[in-house]
Amino acid sequence: MAFEESQVIGMLAEIFATDDPGLIVGIGDDAAVVSTQPRSVITTDMAVEGTHFNTAWSSAFDIGRKITAANLADIYAMGAIPQYLVVAMTLSGDESMEWIRELAQGIAHEARSCGASVVGGDLTQGATKVIAMTAVGAVERHITRSGAGIGEAIYLSALPGWSAAGLALISNENFDDLEGYAIDQFCAPSVDYSAGALLASSGATAMCDISDALIIQSEQMAQASGVRFEFDAQLFTHHPEYVALKELADKHSVDVWQWIFAGGEDHVFLATGKDLPGLHVGTVTDGKGVAGLEMKKAPDTWRHFN
Amino acid sequence: MAFEESQVIGMLAEIFATDDPGLIVGIGDDAAVVSTQPRSVITTDMAVEGTHFNTAWSSAFDIGRKITAANLADIYAMGAIPQYLVVAMTLSGDESMEWIRELAQGIAHEARSCGASVVGGDLTQGATKVIAMTAVGAVERHITRSGAGIGEAIYLSALPGWSAAGLALISNENFDDLEGYAIDQFCAPSVDYSAGALLASSGATAMCDISDALIIQSEQMAQASGVRFEFDAQLFTHHPEYVALKELADKHSVDVWQWIFAGGEDHVFLATGKDLPGLHVGTVTDGKGVAGLEMKKAPDTWRHFN
Repeated sequence: MAFEESQVIGMLAEIFATDDPGLIVGIGDDAAVVSTQPRSVITTDMAVEGTHFNTAWSSAFDIGRKITAANLADIYAMGAIPQYLVVAMTLSGDESMEWIRELAQGIAHEARSCGASVVGGDLTQGATKVIAMTAVGAVERHITRSGAGIGEAIYLSALPGWSAAGLALISNENFDDLEGYAIDQFCAPSVDYSAGALLASSGATAMCDISDALIIQSEQMAQASGVRFEFDAQLFTHHPEYVALKELADKHSVDVWQWIFAGGEDHVFLATGKDLPGLHVGTVTDGKGVAGLEMKKAPDTWRHFN
Repeated sequence: MAFEESQVIGMLAEIFATDDPGLIVGIGDDAAVVSTQPRSVITTDMAVEGTHFNTAWSSAFDIGRKITAANLADIYAMGAIPQYLVVAMTLSGDESMEWIRELAQGIAHEARSCGASVVGGDLTQGATKVIAMTAVGAVERHITRSGAGIGEAIYLSALPGWSAAGLALISNENFDDLEGYAIDQFCAPSVDYSAGALLASSGATAMCDISDALIIQSEQMAQASGVRFEFDAQLFTHHPEYVALKELADKHSVDVWQWIFAGGEDHVFLATGKDLPGLHVGTVTDGKGVAGLEMKKAPDTWRHFN
């Protein structure tokens, strides 16, 4: 073992230190005690080394940011604001203190970017690194996947596909700026949380985070709402980043729609409503299922079963 | 893969189904939406196959109960009542549907025994099974580790040591009733949650769950409270189970105090206060550290680093 557990816990308590007035009892007791609103949202996510992250590809800081972003995006996707996080980690025991410090700093950095605090955790030992995180947030008007109404428009908070592009390109030895940007989005996405909050406050009727893939989550939202989602691929091309993503796909002989429609791990918000901010990509109609997300090539089955 | 993820999620949603009026949006959206009190407690625990549980020793049902009990006990240890749980699991993909069903049933069984509901989760794939759970509870008067006052008495809600005894005996091929009871306490402890609630409502000034070991957690509580914990080993022998545990230890040539003082994974509550229910085992005095928990033999280092 390269470290003492008590040293690690002391270090984590320092890195996660907060003056959040909502935190009544923090790290170091059986549980944290926090102030909560009458309605809270709770979500949990687990990331496994080799499946969700790879220490050869990503820095510890980026791994910490990425798993935290996945949790925070789920909170925003409900129309809520994240408040508290708890982190459970399995470490092999061979990590350096520096690696663990950077992991925790990545988690703390991403949490603070949303005003959330890490209030507790658990540390265990096992052969494979695993990070499980639970986020608790406050909500007044929650937005589910089931509220989409016929005649409403469909919006995306950003152009999806960059993370899938990054995953496809990550094994490249040499990459240019555009490829580097895509790889960064895979290793540690820059999530525009404020776009989620803005969609919520602008009256989104249904919303979700499309981290599994647009084709999967639009299908789920259409089904939950009992409607049909009709996408217009032409509308995606109006996004200012489309040209760059298309150029990257062409350079690597990939169908760009593969990345946009079927790429996972983009923390982009999909919402329905009227006159919402974001990229207008389709219309909610009577019926069921999803139309307009057909690709030239069937999706690869590279995705893990999460 | 022995199962489809969507099948598993459907099954889990059925097993965890609840009519809890506090649950506003349950499994199936980006996050659960729940009713919360002004003060909540949050705790997380992770259990790793091979470190915390072993599928050769324990049924899936017992594994589910055990990890859930660890979380619930931490909630009670704060003087709180558990309300909601989220569960993140890494499965290898080779588990049968039946094994996963029993695991979930064990989790649901233990949660319901405390009136708590499983409101969400995450399912991922990896080489080693890992279960991470987060519990959220409601609290009015929280009880930390730091409230022990000089002159107060020290109490335990039950006699610790049975889980350590079970671990020591589990590799036995043939075992009698007493050994079987100890093994059960290791594989799936029967936690007396009501004893934790009773200690809280009876005015406990400091409390914790001694799942790491009495010697570890009494040291932590004495330090947090800035006092000295003076135990009297003779008082432990007044517990009605002491004779049986001593008999078992003698039979296997183990120092019974090794199990009682240094055994881990007992979800027994350690509390301080005046005239509390439970086994009176010592006194809080001026000074620091812990006295009276000396064993004839130094503790083995079998414990994992959690």
